[in-house]
Amino acid sequence: MLPRGRPRALGAAALLLLLLLLFGFFLFGGDPGCECRERRERTRGPGCFACPLTPRIPSDGQLRRAATLDGDPRADRDGHNHSDCVPQPQLPPRCERLHVAIVCAGHNSSRDLITLVKSILFYRKNPLHLHLVTNAVARNILETLFHTWMVPAVHPSFFLDFICSPTVSWIPNKHYSGLYGLMKLVLPGALPPGLARVIVLDTDVTFASDIAELWALFAHFSDKQAIGLVENQSNWYLGNLWKNHRPWPALGRGFNTGVILLQLDRLRTAGWEQMWRLTASRELLTLPATSLADQDIFNAVIKEHPGLVQPLPCIWNVQLSDHTLAERCYSEASDLKVIHWNSPKKLRVKNKHVAFFRNFYLTFTEYDGNLLRRELFGCPSQPLPGAVQQALEQLDEEDSCFEFRQQQLTVHRVHIAFLPHELPTPRPHDVTLVTQLSMDRLQMLEALCRHWPGPMSLALYLTDAEAQQFLRFVEASPVLSARQDVAYHVVYREGPLYPVNQLRNVALAQALTPYVFLSDIDFLPAYSLYDYLRSSIEQLGLGSQRKAALVVPAFETLHYRFSFPTSKEELLALLDAGALYTFRYHEWPRGHAPTDYTRWREAQAPYRVQWAADYEPYVVVPRDCPRYDPRFVGFGWNKVAHIMELDAQEYELLVLPEAFAIHLPHAPSLEISRFRSSPTYRDCLQALKDEFHQDLSRHYGAAALKYLTALQQPQSP
Amino acid sequence: MLPRGRPRALGAAALLLLLLLLFGFFLFGGDPGCECRERRERTRGPGCFACPLTPRIPSDGQLRRAATLDGDPRADRDGHNHSDCVPQPQLPPRCERLHVAIVCAGHNSSRDLITLVKSILFYRKNPLHLHLVTNAVARNILETLFHTWMVPAVHPSFFLDFICSPTVSWIPNKHYSGLYGLMKLVLPGALPPGLARVIVLDTDVTFASDIAELWALFAHFSDKQAIGLVENQSNWYLGNLWKNHRPWPALGRGFNTGVILLQLDRLRTAGWEQMWRLTASRELLTLPATSLADQDIFNAVIKEHPGLVQPLPCIWNVQLSDHTLAERCYSEASDLKVIHWNSPKKLRVKNKHVAFFRNFYLTFTEYDGNLLRRELFGCPSQPLPGAVQQALEQLDEEDSCFEFRQQQLTVHRVHIAFLPHELPTPRPHDVTLVTQLSMDRLQMLEALCRHWPGPMSLALYLTDAEAQQFLRFVEASPVLSARQDVAYHVVYREGPLYPVNQLRNVALAQALTPYVFLSDIDFLPAYSLYDYLRSSIEQLGLGSQRKAALVVPAFETLHYRFSFPTSKEELLALLDAGALYTFRYHEWPRGHAPTDYTRWREAQAPYRVQWAADYEPYVVVPRDCPRYDPRFVGFGWNKVAHIMELDAQEYELLVLPEAFAIHLPHAPSLEISRFRSSPTYRDCLQALKDEFHQDLSRHYGAAALKYLTALQQPQSP
Repeated sequence: MLPRGRPRALGAAALLLLLLLLFGFFLFGGDPGCECRERRERTRGPGCFACPLTPRIPSDGQLRRAATLDGDPRADRDGHNHSDCVPQPQLPPRCERLHVAIVCAGHNSSRDLITLVKSILFYRKNPLHLHLVTNAVARNILETLFHTWMVPAVHPSFFLDFICSPTVSWIPNKHYSGLYGLMKLVLPGALPPGLARVIVLDTDVTFASDIAELWALFAHFSDKQAIGLVENQSNWYLGNLWKNHRPWPALGRGFNTGVILLQLDRLRTAGWEQMWRLTASRELLTLPATSLADQDIFNAVIKEHPGLVQPLPCIWNVQLSDHTLAERCYSEASDLKVIHWNSPKKLRVKNKHVAFFRNFYLTFTEYDGNLLRRELFGCPSQPLPGAVQQALEQLDEEDSCFEFRQQQLTVHRVHIAFLPHELPTPRPHDVTLVTQLSMDRLQMLEALCRHWPGPMSLALYLTDAEAQQFLRFVEASPVLSARQDVAYHVVYREGPLYPVNQLRNVALAQALTPYVFLSDIDFLPAYSLYDYLRSSIEQLGLGSQRKAALVVPAFETLHYRFSFPTSKEELLALLDAGALYTFRYHEWPRGHAPTDYTRWREAQAPYRVQWAADYEPYVVVPRDCPRYDPRFVGFGWNKVAHIMELDAQEYELLVLPEAFAIHLPHAPSLEISRFRSSPTYRDCLQALKDEFHQDLSRHYGAAALKYLTALQQPQSP
Repeated sequence: MLPRGRPRALGAAALLLLLLLLFGFFLFGGDPGCECRERRERTRGPGCFACPLTPRIPSDGQLRRAATLDGDPRADRDGHNHSDCVPQPQLPPRCERLHVAIVCAGHNSSRDLITLVKSILFYRKNPLHLHLVTNAVARNILETLFHTWMVPAVHPSFFLDFICSPTVSWIPNKHYSGLYGLMKLVLPGALPPGLARVIVLDTDVTFASDIAELWALFAHFSDKQAIGLVENQSNWYLGNLWKNHRPWPALGRGFNTGVILLQLDRLRTAGWEQMWRLTASRELLTLPATSLADQDIFNAVIKEHPGLVQPLPCIWNVQLSDHTLAERCYSEASDLKVIHWNSPKKLRVKNKHVAFFRNFYLTFTEYDGNLLRRELFGCPSQPLPGAVQQALEQLDEEDSCFEFRQQQLTVHRVHIAFLPHELPTPRPHDVTLVTQLSMDRLQMLEALCRHWPGPMSLALYLTDAEAQQFLRFVEASPVLSARQDVAYHVVYREGPLYPVNQLRNVALAQALTPYVFLSDIDFLPAYSLYDYLRSSIEQLGLGSQRKAALVVPAFETLHYRFSFPTSKEELLALLDAGALYTFRYHEWPRGHAPTDYTRWREAQAPYRVQWAADYEPYVVVPRDCPRYDPRFVGFGWNKVAHIMELDAQEYELLVLPEAFAIHLPHAPSLEISRFRSSPTYRDCLQALKDEFHQDLSRHYGAAALKYLTALQQPQSP
């Protein structure tokens, strides 16, 4: 801490001198070597025609001047425009792995992280190792995502927050990032001891360039420097924003910690943990809490140990906070490197150029992440899992069912828990509604929420751009925003056929109650169904004592607007009036005939029915039930096969007397249209069926014979 | 031509010497200046730590070695790895306008051009002037596109092919590009005389870097050089591909003309036109035709005048033809600059890395072109048209109808004639079916084609990625592929509300028959409707003698599968059996009540009906009818307002006794769901209605009073 009064002024002067020295060293010292650069006029100075093949990457001299906002990036210090000779770092070798650390907690932060990673991957040419410090939620999301994304030469590793949090949880913090904002402080201790250098990023930054160029700036570090940072692009740390504004101590405007180059080995040697703990404890004697989380502490430490910091060019962290001074930086640089949305308002920040930056950001939110699966030429990179790769290679492009086979083998990128939600309170008979949909069924969600007050696990088949539309859709809906028990899992689109069973399996795997109701998105359950199912499960001793699938009888209406029956009585009245039908009554009665609607009318208690060919009821089962067979893509037989498998595993089929769900009208799907119009499509479906039967026989032996017999009978789906 | 026999060998040796000299000059001569570069090991040579901030842009030395495929790009000529000192060109100043010329003819080529332009715009930082040599079809498409795209600092200008074609049409040509392939030859004469330099591109190239870097290579040109080209990456011109393969003469492998730097002023001075005409005429004495269009002639001229050519680094034209040798180029370069799909198979070319390149290409086909509207910082760039800009600025974000107002002002990017089709033969009573749809109604198209054998003009509201899906959908459909009279106009999505009337206006503006049937996508017309409408128009003297709108009565079915009535009799029978209803009979009978279905049952001749509030029939009108009011976005009142305007302009409403169309079932649209669930949405629609009425009164005076009176009556849409 600085002494007060006159000594304080002296201290300030000394500090200024130090700063000048620091920047002086930075400008004129450093590594040997020299780059010849033209000034803006681009006149050819003698002997200085060397490097302008890439002048769009501003010269290091320019960058360094730009490292302080008050320096005029357009002119040299003496005001003249002459060539500048400054050292240049070199890019890491092509196959060198670069290390990036990111702290990420929760659902929203995970989405941000993925956008950040997409921007990095778009420009990167090196293998990457991502060190992710996460809470359990983010880990679950990101592990699944990276596992299914399969980007060559990207290796994520996870550190759980609880290992780090005790080290920082004692620090009072008012920043919106909460405890996680502070975790960057513990990285030198938490990351593998052998790791010498790492780039640390906030999740709200977007890359507009190759991250290797940032990595190359490590070469600027002197032997003592250990932390590379960009100056703050606001006046926060100057402490004059409002009366009695008392920011934490910092050198001048201070530094922003959204982008950090950490020389971990040096920090460890220098006793980093003790260093920052000491500083933080001391400051907290007079300051009530950190306002900007880790950034306050980093700045306070740097103020005490200015030799630690290597200032980085401003374009590596263009800060779009509300009262940003960033324009001084980006208006002169034609190349932006990293954009930092460091306002709590994020994309809604007020800034006259925000449209430009937002477009840039949207480029990556909307970017098809599948396209980033491209390999790195010349670097060994893990291909697809061996079995998948082999199977794909064995496919015959001339096979008329090639599309089907390829679709079956497609590993879809999966982003589970796309939106925040809470885990269901564990209850022994709880049921999750499990289903899947694509963009054209979004309008069903509100009605579904009104009909089903319990937990839901929904798989959505979307493009990256559609996932953003979906996000806005939920935000705009009070009904959907209010629900904390609906989990949305995005499965990213790839390939021409709808992978209906893969989607169902994703939703099923993420259901966390002991029972699941396997439904389709066009059905609305009876208002009472959720409660009724739970009491039925309890009464029937489902799961523990009895291996059964509870059948929910299915009906349909042909009217857009329709007054949903509030009881079985009302339903039967509508049925008798011809306002309702049993499901697919006109098109495909076989699918539900075994439910025995006549018996259901009178039934007072659950009754058992027998499996028959093509039966595809909607059922409630324990969540450890068999998965859907992912070979069925597109239209046809996807549920039929699943029910067959339940039957083969000797699930009783019990029809519930008070349960019902009603199908609402919609246009025929693209898939069903293709099925109807294309003989090839029908042939391929037949081939899939045959293969399924073979597998069934292989698995269940003689018991599966009855399915084959049933198949011999003439039929059409 | 070379002499035969031994003199020929001597000639070849001389040529080789010339080549060596040429490349020698290229390697060691040229502009003054020097760049220090590390070799692959990236060891730090003394005094050579200069430029590796950007070594990913290969050093000019690497590039030049890569200019010939047989040079090993990994080592210097002497096989050692040492620093190389070679000149570097400089990038053009930030606001310098770069000139690009592209020859483009027809629908498919226009789509390719747009993908190319998107890739250029993604990386560019300079203003661009596009000089487009097009046929009438491409001009029409591209003029509309650029006009509605409104990318700042991009200026297209058009040259029609017929000015250029006489200059080249005498050349027999076997290449798939046809006559257009040859037009690059005439650019020095056709482009503005003041234009000194231009980059000429084929439509099948994709940029992976800033085009300014390519422009910078002009600085390499010696005073005599006028054409910059990349060596061919196949053995075609070596003439040993098959027995009796006689390619046109070329230096070694020859050069590829997919990417050309043209120093136009020098070519004009050198008498380019005479030069190539002379060479081509002479070669055509012994060769029957050009095989590779302009490329054969460029190569023959260069063989005669090798001093004209400046070889460019291979990465500026990575050629993915079937038997490409490009891997020698790209496997060592970590930075690809331009990818060239120069196989007739395009993306389906066989190449072990094709997935990588295809991903790159798909990035730009799927990229949201709206995001490229971002301004160029620091360069004066035209903003939006003044009026739009002003109106947008006046919007109040707090206004609850802000979304509606913003959507109305949105200028959507429009790609008319997205797929090839033929213009309808002019016939005096012909009718085009006009409608609009989005992705979720694609499955209606086949059925619509079966019901309407006449011309159609369809506006599709799609994202860029969906437009690609749509393309594949049409290609996969024999029914759709077979139709030559259906025009698809893509309107790119932007904003949250469906701009239904803007879409209708786009489709309407592109209808080229004298009459239009204004329909909705969920309707299937009677099989006979097209013929019946034409004869009715003729009999009624519509347009010339009578200002009328012919009403096509609307019905609906609630069943997915449904046997479409082949006559009015059958329709009436279905109606009586309850299998059909009059349209919106249950939900909104007002919309069609004035059609008077009771009278229609018996009618033998067209009958006149009176307008009434909320009437929204489907009508046939002359194509110069009033446009739809674009203020109606989302659900509600969009057709009602149009019919009101027809009535205000004193169109008679004549119901046709044999005409009908039937609406098929679908789920309620997202828009109608929002309308129903959101009071704000309904209030905003009411505000739009009020404003429409005010405008109507202003325009039609007292005559519009009746609409206002009708509005006073209580109603709900």
